[in-house]
Amino acid sequence: MSDQAILTINAGSSSIKFSVYARDGEPQELGRGQVEKLGPAARLVVHPEGASALREEIGQADHDIALQQILSHLEPILQGRQVVGVGHRIVHGGAEFAVPHVLTPDVIDQLALLEPLAPLHQPFNLAAVRAAMAAFPDALQIACFDTGFHRGHPWAFDTFALPRRYFDKGVRRYGFHGLSYDYIAGELARRDPVLARGRVIVAHLGNGASMCAIKGGQSQSSTMGFSALEGLAMGTRSGAIDPGVLLYLMEAEGMGAADLTQLLYKESGLKGLSGLTHDMRSLLASPAPEAAQAIEYYVMRIRHELGGLTADIGGLDALVFTGGVGQNAAKIRALVCDGMEWLGLSLDAAANENGVDEIGRGPVRIFALPTDEERVIARAVNGFLAPGG
Amino acid sequence: MSDQAILTINAGSSSIKFSVYARDGEPQELGRGQVEKLGPAARLVVHPEGASALREEIGQADHDIALQQILSHLEPILQGRQVVGVGHRIVHGGAEFAVPHVLTPDVIDQLALLEPLAPLHQPFNLAAVRAAMAAFPDALQIACFDTGFHRGHPWAFDTFALPRRYFDKGVRRYGFHGLSYDYIAGELARRDPVLARGRVIVAHLGNGASMCAIKGGQSQSSTMGFSALEGLAMGTRSGAIDPGVLLYLMEAEGMGAADLTQLLYKESGLKGLSGLTHDMRSLLASPAPEAAQAIEYYVMRIRHELGGLTADIGGLDALVFTGGVGQNAAKIRALVCDGMEWLGLSLDAAANENGVDEIGRGPVRIFALPTDEERVIARAVNGFLAPGG
Repeated sequence: MSDQAILTINAGSSSIKFSVYARDGEPQELGRGQVEKLGPAARLVVHPEGASALREEIGQADHDIALQQILSHLEPILQGRQVVGVGHRIVHGGAEFAVPHVLTPDVIDQLALLEPLAPLHQPFNLAAVRAAMAAFPDALQIACFDTGFHRGHPWAFDTFALPRRYFDKGVRRYGFHGLSYDYIAGELARRDPVLARGRVIVAHLGNGASMCAIKGGQSQSSTMGFSALEGLAMGTRSGAIDPGVLLYLMEAEGMGAADLTQLLYKESGLKGLSGLTHDMRSLLASPAPEAAQAIEYYVMRIRHELGGLTADIGGLDALVFTGGVGQNAAKIRALVCDGMEWLGLSLDAAANENGVDEIGRGPVRIFALPTDEERVIARAVNGFLAPGG
Repeated sequence: MSDQAILTINAGSSSIKFSVYARDGEPQELGRGQVEKLGPAARLVVHPEGASALREEIGQADHDIALQQILSHLEPILQGRQVVGVGHRIVHGGAEFAVPHVLTPDVIDQLALLEPLAPLHQPFNLAAVRAAMAAFPDALQIACFDTGFHRGHPWAFDTFALPRRYFDKGVRRYGFHGLSYDYIAGELARRDPVLARGRVIVAHLGNGASMCAIKGGQSQSSTMGFSALEGLAMGTRSGAIDPGVLLYLMEAEGMGAADLTQLLYKESGLKGLSGLTHDMRSLLASPAPEAAQAIEYYVMRIRHELGGLTADIGGLDALVFTGGVGQNAAKIRALVCDGMEWLGLSLDAAANENGVDEIGRGPVRIFALPTDEERVIARAVNGFLAPGG
């Protein structure tokens, strides 16, 4: 194996994930890990490839401390290899940045201008970039954009019905989870190139959740638009909501932007509807009727958007479930597909329970696949580095 | 014919419509009309049945003046008949009022409590009720609710993914245009009772626009929810929009509730996207690329919701277009159905252009029908009056 390594960093609002790859043609994973539950009781988890995991309580940790913890735990994974490239998941590339891009001070400044578009994510992404530049001053730093996969959307799927000046100043349906969709599109092309050129809907169901309609390998339309709030109900986010509700809460309850942000991002979704938890595993295990209702709503929204996105791309050849819930929750997949024969969806109940990759038996093929955003980033970094390694 | 008459009043934000019926079994229409363009240059139009229309510029007119103008022009239509019942379109019945209801001072007080839920409509509706009570103190006054047809929605279609306390205090997906959907459901049952018991989507496309998914004659789900703002793009209303856009406009542009209300209700939709006009006929006739783009977005949203609502009711047996645009704009119907064979929709191009009632030739039947909210109201009033007349 090469003595060069690639590091990927995925700085979210409550965790920082990382992966390490050896450069050897297709990047070879050496290990991955994360600092999770950023705040007063954060925890570092490191999984070196082929060795047992390390777990360490690190107490109070913000993004800076978490990243320093990660950097100080890399050596057992790197084993003397030199980090020559660092790839960053950047949530927002705006209207300009679509494909992966070398991070220069000038580019960072441009990306910082997009912070108002993703105030809960973009500042953390860029803080991680600056920290990684300081730690690896000789490495190439590459930005990979969660919005990038969607940048070829037809105009009608890229706008809202607002006065045109708002589109011009950036109020657009950017779409997110692009690195995940990119990975799944690639996986599908590897398995069945003809199918991958057809009409595919991917449901990325994690703590954040969205769906993407892909035609000919290109994103056409997505349930997430301007922010990470639109579309499906999520762990703590509302998803689609009548804009009149926000106007009402402002007028009748005197709520301001900060109150509404807290309500819609942190207290809604599965957590709000159940009154119990944002965690799908806990809800599925709960006997409470409120848990069942929250799941019912969650599934209803996925089904509604499945119909809507199918209209956007004029029919359906394959449906892919991914993300933590999509990949693991057989019950959710079964509820989504129940009674959807009109769309050509028919789940193979046994295959679905067993968690094999392909789980349909109707004319529209159905898959449950793991996603790997880190690998998409590592491949992009590898592409920028000199051949070999 | 009977010497008793029924008056219906439909007070909108910019017009007041009325109809007059003789009581004779099924109400027999004697005439109808409206005061339109409320403001500095309002106009009264009266169409007596079987006689030529009267048009009169009435200058400055608010809702009170407009209603007095209407009442003073009724006699040539009534021709000596006595108004024994007045039916009112009330936009919001809240969670309590579903079926038509006798308007007592107590009921009016309860409906006034709902004004914050429909600030642009409910106050005008109730002002018209009070004026009609003064003008016809001996007549029965009946409220018919635009939300009523939807009150049997399953829970998941009635809520947002907010903390449960919001549902309890009335933040629900009420749905609107219920009188129109009620009329269309009745028309369909008259034409084909078996079809009407199936799965039907009605697209009410007027200045306001929504779609309703009906199963077994009952509304299951609608694109309009809490306010008249959700769902489809309309003449000047945005329809669905990422809630994150409102948060952004509050934070980045300092907009408040009044600014956002003005933007989303008055400056968006077809008018905002085209930069030209809210009027679909003008847009269809315009050579401007912006007009074509506005239409493209409008149609995209209808198609998306057509797929979504079909998922809500598990398949589709019939699609009905109604409302000013739905009934008259063959081009819009053609664009909505184009490439929707995956859903079983196939338009008969000649029938569509000729404007006959049934215009499909695929497995899912397609209709273009006039709606008649006033007749639904008149029937309800008639049902409350003593038999005969």
